[in-house]
Amino acid sequence: MPEPMEVRRRIALLRSAMPAAGCAAYLIPASDPHTSEYMPAHYNAREYFSGFPCENSTLVVTKDKAALWVDGRYFVAAEAALRGTGIDMQRLNTAGTPTVEAYCAAALLPGEALGYCPDTLPLTIQRTLRAALAKKGTTLKALHLENALWQENRPALPATPAFLLSPQQTGKAPGEKLALLRAALVEAGCTAMLENRLDCVAWLCNLRAADIPDTPYALAFCWVTQQNAVLFLDTSRLPAADQAMLAAEGFSLRGYGALNRYFGAEGAAASGCEKAVPVCPCEGSCAVLGRETVLADPSSLTAAQYDLLAAQPGFTVVEKPDPILLLKAVKNETELACTREAHLRDAVCMVRFQRWLEGRLASAAPLREYDCCEALYALRSVDPAFVCLSFAPIAAWGPNAAMMHYMPQKGQDGPIERRGFLLVDSGTTCRDGTTDITRTYAVGPLTDEEKENYTRVLKCHIDMAAAVWKAGATGGELDMLARQPLWRHLLDYRCGTGHGVAHVGSVHEGPQSLRPHNGTVFCPGMVITDEPGLYEGGAFGIRIENELECRDAGDSEYGHFLCFAPLMWVPIDTAPVLPALLDTTELAWLNAYHQQVYEKLAPRLNDEERTWLRAKCAPLGV
Amino acid sequence: MPEPMEVRRRIALLRSAMPAAGCAAYLIPASDPHTSEYMPAHYNAREYFSGFPCENSTLVVTKDKAALWVDGRYFVAAEAALRGTGIDMQRLNTAGTPTVEAYCAAALLPGEALGYCPDTLPLTIQRTLRAALAKKGTTLKALHLENALWQENRPALPATPAFLLSPQQTGKAPGEKLALLRAALVEAGCTAMLENRLDCVAWLCNLRAADIPDTPYALAFCWVTQQNAVLFLDTSRLPAADQAMLAAEGFSLRGYGALNRYFGAEGAAASGCEKAVPVCPCEGSCAVLGRETVLADPSSLTAAQYDLLAAQPGFTVVEKPDPILLLKAVKNETELACTREAHLRDAVCMVRFQRWLEGRLASAAPLREYDCCEALYALRSVDPAFVCLSFAPIAAWGPNAAMMHYMPQKGQDGPIERRGFLLVDSGTTCRDGTTDITRTYAVGPLTDEEKENYTRVLKCHIDMAAAVWKAGATGGELDMLARQPLWRHLLDYRCGTGHGVAHVGSVHEGPQSLRPHNGTVFCPGMVITDEPGLYEGGAFGIRIENELECRDAGDSEYGHFLCFAPLMWVPIDTAPVLPALLDTTELAWLNAYHQQVYEKLAPRLNDEERTWLRAKCAPLGV
Repeated sequence: MPEPMEVRRRIALLRSAMPAAGCAAYLIPASDPHTSEYMPAHYNAREYFSGFPCENSTLVVTKDKAALWVDGRYFVAAEAALRGTGIDMQRLNTAGTPTVEAYCAAALLPGEALGYCPDTLPLTIQRTLRAALAKKGTTLKALHLENALWQENRPALPATPAFLLSPQQTGKAPGEKLALLRAALVEAGCTAMLENRLDCVAWLCNLRAADIPDTPYALAFCWVTQQNAVLFLDTSRLPAADQAMLAAEGFSLRGYGALNRYFGAEGAAASGCEKAVPVCPCEGSCAVLGRETVLADPSSLTAAQYDLLAAQPGFTVVEKPDPILLLKAVKNETELACTREAHLRDAVCMVRFQRWLEGRLASAAPLREYDCCEALYALRSVDPAFVCLSFAPIAAWGPNAAMMHYMPQKGQDGPIERRGFLLVDSGTTCRDGTTDITRTYAVGPLTDEEKENYTRVLKCHIDMAAAVWKAGATGGELDMLARQPLWRHLLDYRCGTGHGVAHVGSVHEGPQSLRPHNGTVFCPGMVITDEPGLYEGGAFGIRIENELECRDAGDSEYGHFLCFAPLMWVPIDTAPVLPALLDTTELAWLNAYHQQVYEKLAPRLNDEERTWLRAKCAPLGV
Repeated sequence: MPEPMEVRRRIALLRSAMPAAGCAAYLIPASDPHTSEYMPAHYNAREYFSGFPCENSTLVVTKDKAALWVDGRYFVAAEAALRGTGIDMQRLNTAGTPTVEAYCAAALLPGEALGYCPDTLPLTIQRTLRAALAKKGTTLKALHLENALWQENRPALPATPAFLLSPQQTGKAPGEKLALLRAALVEAGCTAMLENRLDCVAWLCNLRAADIPDTPYALAFCWVTQQNAVLFLDTSRLPAADQAMLAAEGFSLRGYGALNRYFGAEGAAASGCEKAVPVCPCEGSCAVLGRETVLADPSSLTAAQYDLLAAQPGFTVVEKPDPILLLKAVKNETELACTREAHLRDAVCMVRFQRWLEGRLASAAPLREYDCCEALYALRSVDPAFVCLSFAPIAAWGPNAAMMHYMPQKGQDGPIERRGFLLVDSGTTCRDGTTDITRTYAVGPLTDEEKENYTRVLKCHIDMAAAVWKAGATGGELDMLARQPLWRHLLDYRCGTGHGVAHVGSVHEGPQSLRPHNGTVFCPGMVITDEPGLYEGGAFGIRIENELECRDAGDSEYGHFLCFAPLMWVPIDTAPVLPALLDTTELAWLNAYHQQVYEKLAPRLNDEERTWLRAKCAPLGV
């Protein structure tokens, strides 16, 4: 992280450019042209100007103040990091903290403008801001100050080698997915769509790369009509065979930077081609745009992309959810079979990691958190199908684990003492699946309170994993089941119970989510994490996480029922469990889970490991 | 019920009047000018023309057919009753059954019309019908055929003695409620409202009567502006002192039938008063209507009432939910204190009923279901505060209990054999509260399966009653908690887990409801039933029901928490319970509940009853 003085310099630079640009405040979101959650460093102006690395935050610089909104995961770290920078930390979604739009509206005088870059600002945020500012007689102004002011040492646009996953890994070739998408567009009353989300482009084309740390996607866009499909991607990155394959599947290729030209100079102007609408008989090779009813998902597109589509003379823009999100979230049988296998291999890594950890704990030599990260990387990266980690691993001892997304850095990590809990949250992406698993290990003596808290979190995990429900239930309804063991004691965790996971992709995927009020209906084939926790600032953090798949549970005269099944099979530390606090159903689930862990992993382990595993999987309370 | 031939005659009468009236089909909903769930016999044209008594149904008569839509509660009974009438039974919300609007659209030729009475048709149904018919080039036509054809022996409009509950029973005088309503209207951006719902008028004016069986309301409307409040009610029914009280609280009174004149001849024409808008300085006594922004709840108003409001030159109609619904659903401290006391007195009745039942079961004399209804009425009606039963009681033995809303009639009831279960669902309305309680009693030997089913239903009841949640959860989210013990075995009940109950009013109240996907957020002071069940056609029915109140559970660093507390304290039959199937939490809840039942009721019982109660409340599994 840069020194506070350097952050002050960057903020001052931005502030000094504002008057000439015609704005009295400037907003930088954590976003890129793909409205990515995880983005390439090239686009991370929010981090550059605030100096603080985190997800899901927003920087606002006014004439005399600067403020950074961070979510609950970062309250502790941001407070320390922002000291001396002149930036005030704002606690996102916390009583007493103004919303970004209320803050901006209050900071401007009537007639003044808030500047922003339309190339990266999500359309939804633009709309919220515009409505809030209009009430105060202030406005939004599209500018590109971060591009103008952040050139020196700015990381280049990434262009890592790209590749296509095979249908044996994805279950469907790009052409089949294209047909599904086109049908979904018609179903939604539309003919065309601009796909700017990297995860959705990756799904559609079976395309992967390493443009973003721990997220195996390539910078790209897709424009799909009923006749044409154009992939905007630096083709130099893709092997010729893969290029030919995409062409055979119905995709034409253009450069990543050609999108605006396609819809602008080449498209909208369109004077070079005189062919009639609705579709030019040249089948898109001339890039002339016909009449299209374009599906636009306001929560995916940037402000600039929406305006680009709306400006095309032949286009009618219809706002609907991106149909790829749901197509992608429901995994097919091939994807599920691959994912199950990837999880079993990762389970073996986790078993070996735990044995390594126990060995280190048994010796007197000092042990630090980052040692765990290195050990995990060593175990995972030797897999022949290894692509990348699914995120930077968290190994957090004691109070560090209370910071929900604490990530130890080499040389800045804490020691692992031989008492209390060590929380390890990690995962991997192989060519057949993406994993995300958390175990909390007792690394020495525990207090009764620690055992009680651990057991409560375990109850939450089990109550979610063991749920059975009538088809039609939403994530918000199901989330309710996980929290009862904590809510009964007025305890809670300040996050969802679980998030979707993409297939060989981002570790966060929507629209399904186990989270209060989420309205997505769960379907067989959806993958979700189950990761309740309990976090006490300055004291401890406990989390137990498996990925689950949603499955059919059967039919009866009452209808069709669904359930979850674990994808991950790794022992859950039973040393801290107080069996008397477990209900019979919960105890039965835990013992059955451990029996299956043993049965599934034993054939993949050596004798010594098998003996160890048998002890770890011993049933409780019998 | 009339003979099939008589029903044929009535349908033929209606059919023969259609051509002259200019319609090719006619629809009669189960509704009245107050869109009531339970309505006075005077308005029940649907029952008159179809001959079949039930709730929630619709009759459609076409040139050559007639059809009656009934819900799942009535499939068996309606099939038998409609035999020979020429009316086809349609199973509501069942695959393969057309919707009412699809049926009507299919029955009409382009240019033909569907007739209906706008005075009773709910606006929402009018809109659905209009949209469906428009697609086929057919239309709706407002007629009043049922009024014209149903005069002989038609029950008169009821005009039972009306009375006002005191602020000691309601916590708020009508004037205070009027102020709350006016503030809520302003909050919703409106100035005025026409209240046609009987339960809402009853709440606003503290008005009660006996116009509808088991539902203590008076036929009335209210028109409320920021300056005026007019109660449309047959004033001859209300004691002079109550009339004076309402006048003092700010209500002027007009006849029940004066509503149309008020907005029509007196209002809209308005030439008699030349005073300027927005409000005539005569303050409403001249009945001239000023400019008003009128809140109209489409799910409350009839088609005619909406048109009446929309036709007023000075009115702007804004569609929003009726604010009284939520004001009424959240009970104040006085209402809750009264309700708790009413429930304790009713609990004593239930204890005495169970002792009576056990006495009868112990003798060899035959016992029939209706005997239970009579015994309950005898116990409840002697309460000095007794107003009416809250609904016709259900006492259903064995297979009869599988019909969820089976109601035994004198002389048409079944015998109670000395085996299996007897389900008794009943309640009372006193001047201090309305109760609704179900117990399922073992009346002889039980099979293991019966015990298992009973225990599962009990688990559902307890899991709901013991819920603790972070404020903000909806009824749909909470409903999830109740069903797990059944869903795990692919079992379910085909209804909500619970419904709201009005204060000294209708036994069904919204908007709160424990039911999949219900979106109302639960608030402290809401009253709800908790009544999961299990029903196997031809075999058995099990239901265990208490009313619960929603309460604050406390605050922590994680926010504000809510919970339920039972309002009803009556032993739950433990004879059928398999304690091994109860989780520790469930067993603890049951034993704590029974301990409180004993403590709360003992002081109200004689020695013999107390001894009996102590045995019924003995803890399980300890």
